[in-house]
Amino acid sequence: MQAVFFEGNRKLRVGESVPVEPGAGQVRIQVAYCGICGTDLHLFHGAMAHRLTLPHVMGHEMAGTIERVGSGVEGWRAGDRVTVRPLDPCGKCPACAAGHSHICHNLKFIGIDTPGALQGMWTVPAHTLHRLPDGLALREAAMVEPVAVACHDVRMSGLKEGEFAVVIGGGPIGTLVALVAGARGARVVMAEVNPFRVALARELGIEAVNPLDTDLPALVNERTGGAGADVVFEVSGSQAGAEMMTKLPRTRGRIVVVAIYGEAPKVDLFRFFWRELQLCGARVYEGQDFELAIELAATGRLPLARLITDVLPLGGLEEAMHRMEGGGACMKILVSCTD
Amino acid sequence: MQAVFFEGNRKLRVGESVPVEPGAGQVRIQVAYCGICGTDLHLFHGAMAHRLTLPHVMGHEMAGTIERVGSGVEGWRAGDRVTVRPLDPCGKCPACAAGHSHICHNLKFIGIDTPGALQGMWTVPAHTLHRLPDGLALREAAMVEPVAVACHDVRMSGLKEGEFAVVIGGGPIGTLVALVAGARGARVVMAEVNPFRVALARELGIEAVNPLDTDLPALVNERTGGAGADVVFEVSGSQAGAEMMTKLPRTRGRIVVVAIYGEAPKVDLFRFFWRELQLCGARVYEGQDFELAIELAATGRLPLARLITDVLPLGGLEEAMHRMEGGGACMKILVSCTD
Repeated sequence: MQAVFFEGNRKLRVGESVPVEPGAGQVRIQVAYCGICGTDLHLFHGAMAHRLTLPHVMGHEMAGTIERVGSGVEGWRAGDRVTVRPLDPCGKCPACAAGHSHICHNLKFIGIDTPGALQGMWTVPAHTLHRLPDGLALREAAMVEPVAVACHDVRMSGLKEGEFAVVIGGGPIGTLVALVAGARGARVVMAEVNPFRVALARELGIEAVNPLDTDLPALVNERTGGAGADVVFEVSGSQAGAEMMTKLPRTRGRIVVVAIYGEAPKVDLFRFFWRELQLCGARVYEGQDFELAIELAATGRLPLARLITDVLPLGGLEEAMHRMEGGGACMKILVSCTD
Repeated sequence: MQAVFFEGNRKLRVGESVPVEPGAGQVRIQVAYCGICGTDLHLFHGAMAHRLTLPHVMGHEMAGTIERVGSGVEGWRAGDRVTVRPLDPCGKCPACAAGHSHICHNLKFIGIDTPGALQGMWTVPAHTLHRLPDGLALREAAMVEPVAVACHDVRMSGLKEGEFAVVIGGGPIGTLVALVAGARGARVVMAEVNPFRVALARELGIEAVNPLDTDLPALVNERTGGAGADVVFEVSGSQAGAEMMTKLPRTRGRIVVVAIYGEAPKVDLFRFFWRELQLCGARVYEGQDFELAIELAATGRLPLARLITDVLPLGGLEEAMHRMEGGGACMKILVSCTD
């Protein structure tokens, strides 16, 4: 079995990996596909270095088949097709006690704080498993994790059928948020500056505009009879996005901050006061978000295959990183882990 | 009858005012007391000049007695003791249609967009009136409007009995928010840098700290078993307050932006993501907030008399402005309008 090892300083190496015997409460999965996340790109660039033990195996968006089951694991057996919700909470902190274990104060994110899925065999706690329906191909199933992010974001927004939503930022997560919001019956406009992503979104039936060409606040006002958007998803992580997000909502409209900001942007708190706007942050997912993501994927209601720009072998991870950091004609790249 | 006229350029002039005959749907009130709000100080400094017709009569925190009733006004008569909720919404815009008429897109704020209460006789729409109970003195009743602001802020926060709240900023509104939150059964800590205000808050039974001397995040963590505050009220309007507000809440804790920010501060949106924090703006009040404010004032559950630093005649408005802009030993100054 092979793995891609991240050795720091933007170095990746494909090498032999010794499969880890699953301990009590663990399973070992033969990984079929693993998607590359923006977070993996950040790791490649040196972010969160203090959390990594080098050489580190990245990857947390995957689908595969259980190969071996550790002691005490019930309900799972070899051959089960699964994906992993890569969160390992402590179960003891105030966040866990409050029922927010997905944002546990001591959360281990599997694939960052522990080895990830970019390897042929991956050993994880059985509590992280979600079962995949027979009809869902493992390729598309590798997209369940980012779909679950989008499901969480939409759920946190309280979006209702018929409401008007704007998604700022049309990368993989923004596009999935737009698709999930649409599947929930919302009217959606997505703002994105990358022409490839705008064109792809339009092919998928999303109304996408370039906010540098289009007066987005005017468009939203026109569509909502001057009221403003019910919900705005800020997925760009940019100062421009942080400025735009407060211009669009109606009185008591909701903003969901999905993006991970490296620096604190300026935010128009006066506008929050003036329109009594609401904002919430949304991070990762909970079990119900994974279940909905699997359902949406399995019933074919999301065009997941169209979001997969390419599928590369393990040795292609470096190429994938370069294509992602170049922007351009790139959405989601998968790595085939057991070729 | 006299009024204080604001003539621009920080000029105030006491002069004769001609009482305005109440038209259809209006009443004329003999104003007993009118409190000076931070907003009045901003007007004095030249803010919102485009909204004023000079010479302008300021003032919107008042109590008085109906002197004359216009045609078509039902339920009110001369001699009724009242306060005014100084909002005149259009009734037609999307905000009004959505039930948010207190933040109407075309809201006229009485005392800014139309003449205010710093005069002996004041003519206003009857729909703005709230009845004062017999036991509530007109002096304390002039505090009902800012108390209603605090009631609105606390209601918007969703604060529950036993929850832990932090109020950042201990001016009149911050102090009232702390008092109302306490009256609703919350545990409250208030952060304020002005020693006079800290001392006054402590006299009133509020736990007040100077955040320059006290490690507020550490204090909040200690008091909440490491969880963080349930609710944070940002009433300071400062960059320091905007930074502090995100450091204090628990996972999914709520921040209410009460302050009116002149410039967009930097806000740690990463922290919103990381802890799934919630934020909402809160502006003015709705009818139910005035009713609760009157009830809290009338039942003596708030030490309103202790918040009144001084009562000056109409001619003392300029002195009041200077004392307020100097900070220091000043909380709420009332003006007696019919001496």
